[in-house]
Amino acid sequence: MAAVTYELIKKDSKSKARRGRVHTPHGSIETPVFMPVGTAATVKAMRPDEVKEMGAQIILSNTYHLYLRPGHEIVREAGGLHKFMNWDRAILTDSGGFQVFSLGDLRKITEEGVEFRSHIDGSKHMLSPEKSIEVQNALGSDIIMAFDECAPYPADRGYVKNSLERTTRWLKRCKEANKNEDFQSLFGIMQGGMYQDLRYQSAMEIVDLDLPGYAIGGLSVGEPKDIMYEVLDYCVDYLPADKPRYLMGVGSPDYLFEGVERGVDMFDCVLPTRIARNGTAMTSRGRVVIKNAAHERDFTALDPECDCYTCRNYSKAYLRHLFKSNEILSSMLLTNHNLHFLINLMSNMRKAIEEDRFLEFKREFYNKYGKF
Amino acid sequence: MAAVTYELIKKDSKSKARRGRVHTPHGSIETPVFMPVGTAATVKAMRPDEVKEMGAQIILSNTYHLYLRPGHEIVREAGGLHKFMNWDRAILTDSGGFQVFSLGDLRKITEEGVEFRSHIDGSKHMLSPEKSIEVQNALGSDIIMAFDECAPYPADRGYVKNSLERTTRWLKRCKEANKNEDFQSLFGIMQGGMYQDLRYQSAMEIVDLDLPGYAIGGLSVGEPKDIMYEVLDYCVDYLPADKPRYLMGVGSPDYLFEGVERGVDMFDCVLPTRIARNGTAMTSRGRVVIKNAAHERDFTALDPECDCYTCRNYSKAYLRHLFKSNEILSSMLLTNHNLHFLINLMSNMRKAIEEDRFLEFKREFYNKYGKF
Repeated sequence: MAAVTYELIKKDSKSKARRGRVHTPHGSIETPVFMPVGTAATVKAMRPDEVKEMGAQIILSNTYHLYLRPGHEIVREAGGLHKFMNWDRAILTDSGGFQVFSLGDLRKITEEGVEFRSHIDGSKHMLSPEKSIEVQNALGSDIIMAFDECAPYPADRGYVKNSLERTTRWLKRCKEANKNEDFQSLFGIMQGGMYQDLRYQSAMEIVDLDLPGYAIGGLSVGEPKDIMYEVLDYCVDYLPADKPRYLMGVGSPDYLFEGVERGVDMFDCVLPTRIARNGTAMTSRGRVVIKNAAHERDFTALDPECDCYTCRNYSKAYLRHLFKSNEILSSMLLTNHNLHFLINLMSNMRKAIEEDRFLEFKREFYNKYGKF
Repeated sequence: MAAVTYELIKKDSKSKARRGRVHTPHGSIETPVFMPVGTAATVKAMRPDEVKEMGAQIILSNTYHLYLRPGHEIVREAGGLHKFMNWDRAILTDSGGFQVFSLGDLRKITEEGVEFRSHIDGSKHMLSPEKSIEVQNALGSDIIMAFDECAPYPADRGYVKNSLERTTRWLKRCKEANKNEDFQSLFGIMQGGMYQDLRYQSAMEIVDLDLPGYAIGGLSVGEPKDIMYEVLDYCVDYLPADKPRYLMGVGSPDYLFEGVERGVDMFDCVLPTRIARNGTAMTSRGRVVIKNAAHERDFTALDPECDCYTCRNYSKAYLRHLFKSNEILSSMLLTNHNLHFLINLMSNMRKAIEEDRFLEFKREFYNKYGKF
């Protein structure tokens, strides 16, 4: 049996939303779930005990970053990523593919893999399916991701077709390369851009490999939201119902709702942590830009409906002061709030599915939130 | 009775070290004590619950910074500094004097006070004894400091004498201006540079005002350590035994030991928090510069004798990785350790005084610590 398995708990009767559980070697994850991102073996500005306390069940970390710094061999010697970063719950690592493709002029793609120069010191490296899995095996994450190519938007059909077919060939090499199948589960990634038949082709090819889970890649890459939702609609249908489905790189509340409604189980995004450091909070009444003068003498909490550490103890006036003073505590408190907000939102979505009122819950939330 | 009082618990038989207790409206403080600095209403990179958990009994905050940003009236409207920053233990605020004097060309001293330009936006302001106390009254700190002039080192006798005499005149105006004597206790500050007779003169003048506590200012301003210790020796003798004695702005372990040995009760310094953000830890074996290549594969704790959150959970290799990656968690974990280290050190000093073995404890510590 695979190290990671999916258990279906309940289906919503009016949408494709589903309540499930993903079992991993580091505990079970109630789904749908949002995974905070800890790029460089740390969820930025958070102590791991805080991240646990707010109910995070799994975090994501980045192969590209850890390969370059501190180097995966050091993490291996440290006893693996869980021990290195003091996180005893589940970890998912991406493959590094997305990061090296994003390097633009600094990288060259061949059938073998991607040659690139480090964004830190310009040194030359090669990331291939085998190398990515070798690094992820050294990290020891519970879920490891296939080394894929994420086509940009827009991209012509020929490019996308070539790219998805290479992604399938690379996936086979990844599966072959995974030395720790019994405790590290490889997820395949569907590509195919905004072309329905190519999405279908990609799905059939990767599902054929009978992997423990599947991700939908190549969305939220610049396409309009309605196109993304339309593509997502049929993508989910092409994936097996008995495996977890992971939509990569989305984290704003509307994406999460629309993803869950279409049957997605897992999400990740740097959005909540990144905007926190830039002084923006997600709240039940929409986004709050803390530096705005309106908050100068506002002694109420960020979010009247939130019971996170930040909202229980601090006013907008104080948070604004911290942000304007470039205090580290500003990033700490806003990150705490934003992560708590999304984790709590997912918990409420799960409850709504259990009570078969997911679409009502979504409507209520949208009415209060306003513009996304 | 004053809002702040001193209770003597035990005197060391072989030195002037003393174990005491300072009672404040926000709890009692076991002395000798080190006060972490929270310049802008936050101990940098720390949540207040962390600062409490490690045993901090009182923190220091800065009048100059809070006057400029967010503005003391906002803190007053927030319900005072304790509530604004979510800290329910004691707070001491400095007078802003030291900061405005440090502005160099940006300030002009008159008998009235100091005219200066903000380091933030260049705007023009005036800080006087009355204004400093008005600001500190708005902040609501338990211990408020007199607006004094800290003479530089070296400084000629005439300058120092004029300066200390103005400090006394300003102290009288501060005492007059304090509207909250029943819950905010004004401490006077002794000046006089490195001149014994001037220190004596300053002490006599300020002790005459029968204030609830006294600080020794104008030390650790660039003079050699042996001169500082010599001056400190007689300064303490000029201060009343039934009031707390506070040596301003020192925080390295040797200063703390030498101060306690000479009868000082209270200390503050940005040192532990500032060097933490720069990647340096204070440990029982001396300073550790975390970025050093020697720590790349060092999977042991920062300090083998420390039981702080950082030392319990992380290796030097991980801390080095965080620091080199410019991760906020680096500042958080090293600050946590350094503050814990000093707070724990003071707790051990108190125990040593209780057991009448302060000098032995000092000797043991110095032997292990090496170079300061």
